[in-house]
Amino acid sequence: MRGFLNTPDSSLYSGVLARYGAWMDLPAHTRPVTLLEGNTPLIPMPRLAQELGGGFELFVKFEGMNPTGSFKDRGMTAAISEAFGRGVHTVICASTGNTAASAAAYAARAQMRAIVIIPEGKVAAGKLAGAVAYGAQVIQIQGSFDDALSLVVEISERHPIALVNSLNPYRLEGQKTAAFEIVDALGSAPDWLCLPVGNAGNITSYWMGFRQDHARRSSGLPRILGVQAEGAAPLVLGHPVEHPETVATAIRIGKPARGEQALEAAEQSGGRIIAVSDAEILAMQRRLAGEGVWVEPASAAGLAGLARQLREGKMRLSELRGRRVVAVCTGHGLKDPEIIAHNMPAPLRLPARMDALEEAILGVSR
Amino acid sequence: MRGFLNTPDSSLYSGVLARYGAWMDLPAHTRPVTLLEGNTPLIPMPRLAQELGGGFELFVKFEGMNPTGSFKDRGMTAAISEAFGRGVHTVICASTGNTAASAAAYAARAQMRAIVIIPEGKVAAGKLAGAVAYGAQVIQIQGSFDDALSLVVEISERHPIALVNSLNPYRLEGQKTAAFEIVDALGSAPDWLCLPVGNAGNITSYWMGFRQDHARRSSGLPRILGVQAEGAAPLVLGHPVEHPETVATAIRIGKPARGEQALEAAEQSGGRIIAVSDAEILAMQRRLAGEGVWVEPASAAGLAGLARQLREGKMRLSELRGRRVVAVCTGHGLKDPEIIAHNMPAPLRLPARMDALEEAILGVSR
Repeated sequence: MRGFLNTPDSSLYSGVLARYGAWMDLPAHTRPVTLLEGNTPLIPMPRLAQELGGGFELFVKFEGMNPTGSFKDRGMTAAISEAFGRGVHTVICASTGNTAASAAAYAARAQMRAIVIIPEGKVAAGKLAGAVAYGAQVIQIQGSFDDALSLVVEISERHPIALVNSLNPYRLEGQKTAAFEIVDALGSAPDWLCLPVGNAGNITSYWMGFRQDHARRSSGLPRILGVQAEGAAPLVLGHPVEHPETVATAIRIGKPARGEQALEAAEQSGGRIIAVSDAEILAMQRRLAGEGVWVEPASAAGLAGLARQLREGKMRLSELRGRRVVAVCTGHGLKDPEIIAHNMPAPLRLPARMDALEEAILGVSR
Repeated sequence: MRGFLNTPDSSLYSGVLARYGAWMDLPAHTRPVTLLEGNTPLIPMPRLAQELGGGFELFVKFEGMNPTGSFKDRGMTAAISEAFGRGVHTVICASTGNTAASAAAYAARAQMRAIVIIPEGKVAAGKLAGAVAYGAQVIQIQGSFDDALSLVVEISERHPIALVNSLNPYRLEGQKTAAFEIVDALGSAPDWLCLPVGNAGNITSYWMGFRQDHARRSSGLPRILGVQAEGAAPLVLGHPVEHPETVATAIRIGKPARGEQALEAAEQSGGRIIAVSDAEILAMQRRLAGEGVWVEPASAAGLAGLARQLREGKMRLSELRGRRVVAVCTGHGLKDPEIIAHNMPAPLRLPARMDALEEAILGVSR
């Protein structure tokens, strides 16, 4: 790779390519474009571990603390850096959510044009606000998400336009750095990794990353628990889901691009892929917020799956004793505030008087 | 301070009290409550520096990458840690925005009850969603923000309820750690620090932090450019503003709690406090997003002020030659997506056909 873009001082944290580029399979022409993604915290969750039965250590890898609020930034820095180094001026993706915002941000950083193709149907302005804020051009086609994806694949084959959907292999190279960070923080791989599974790029990347890390420094391998939403669980059902439905929009995917690799990751690691209900996802979202970590619904799926496995006896506390479990939370709650705002109780209304406030808070009246 | 809460492994990044506690003036009873706040990136902005005239280095300290999406988390970890160590079970603040979300998150982390008092008037659900998500109890009083603040001050004096508004001195102790981080990253203090000024706690904290750092390791002192919004510029006007108005809601404050200290910080540092228009703020917000950094409007005020000073010749490029300027961006754009969503153009609609897409993107028809 040539010199890093925009990083005058090597003592500064300079993003995942600067830190882990030597372990990423990127072409020689790659020129790093970074917003200082990665370096996300691993938050201890001792109380939640206790509630789930105790005896093991539990951490949340909070990927919502990336520059655009989701884990997508790790893969996007790699994909955009490759395209930028190749001299491409335009990037394109089919997405209505986190991928679009991330692509738009990194394209802006490299002064490239970003085009986001969205399918027919109601547009959730809040979900698109990120992409639009970063200056992406949004085009709505009169077709499905699959139609949108086919079109972006085809146009990227015909013209010098970089496809940055997860079919782009450099996305995985970037995303796997989260595994390296977990090993760096813990000193070795955790015993279990729990994470949501939608398009299945992330589970594939983590497994790549942990295997590579283990080959390099014998850091061990986690067992992987991949968790889908019941209404969008093609890898559990064994067939595509025509009309996936779940409150966890970030994993509302019926035909995962990396389904085979996800199943392999689960099997090779001695783990599994399961499904949980929207109610379980939302309950775990609330539980995590009750520890000060507000994530978007999909992000709670991994932990909801862990809770369910323990409840059903499919994972035993005796197996977990003394072990370390990491749950990946992929996006910040700020990505989907509507789900909170729509169910928000009206605030209690009081006169602006001390006695009223005391009574409301302390249950005493003077 | 007693042992750190919830941090089993000292090799993990453990938040600002773990890293900088030795330099913070906190009572011995303090027990750290952390969400791994701080450790935020300093993003180089060479293109923007060039546009502003060039010849100097420009960085954005992106405080939107804190756990709840704003710089408030630095001060809140300190305030809540003190209250937690003191055995307090309830915290209270008057706020409708970033302070409320941060207080609620850290209270949740410590299993304390959080109460948020909001003034009369229309409640922006989006702004409150964070606090509600983290489990705060929201009470609306039939009075102004000042009435709300008076009430929370009084109730915290009468009962064992911790006030975590910026009157709480530990908030400043936490917030000053951002200055330490800037020095750690750059190797010395920058020549100028530009930042938004609302309630003036942050400018006060940075000045405290830089002075302390300089006393400890001769890191130098920045000149400080504090920037208010024209419709909420009491420190520029020299008197309180009865009805402050600005699109930059996070600095829409007419009677700053730390006004005197802010004026001192500007004067002692050889800097100044100025005001910019909402149009300048929004233009700079767009410009920053065009570099891949989406911030809430108030966060763009510091850089908008720098741009204006240079344009008006009140700061000269010759003075800045070879210098380093840091602009503080206090909150993430995700905190205020409405401002984007409301002005969003409708997407271009196309049939799901390759020729239509090619024509739209490339201006060619086959």
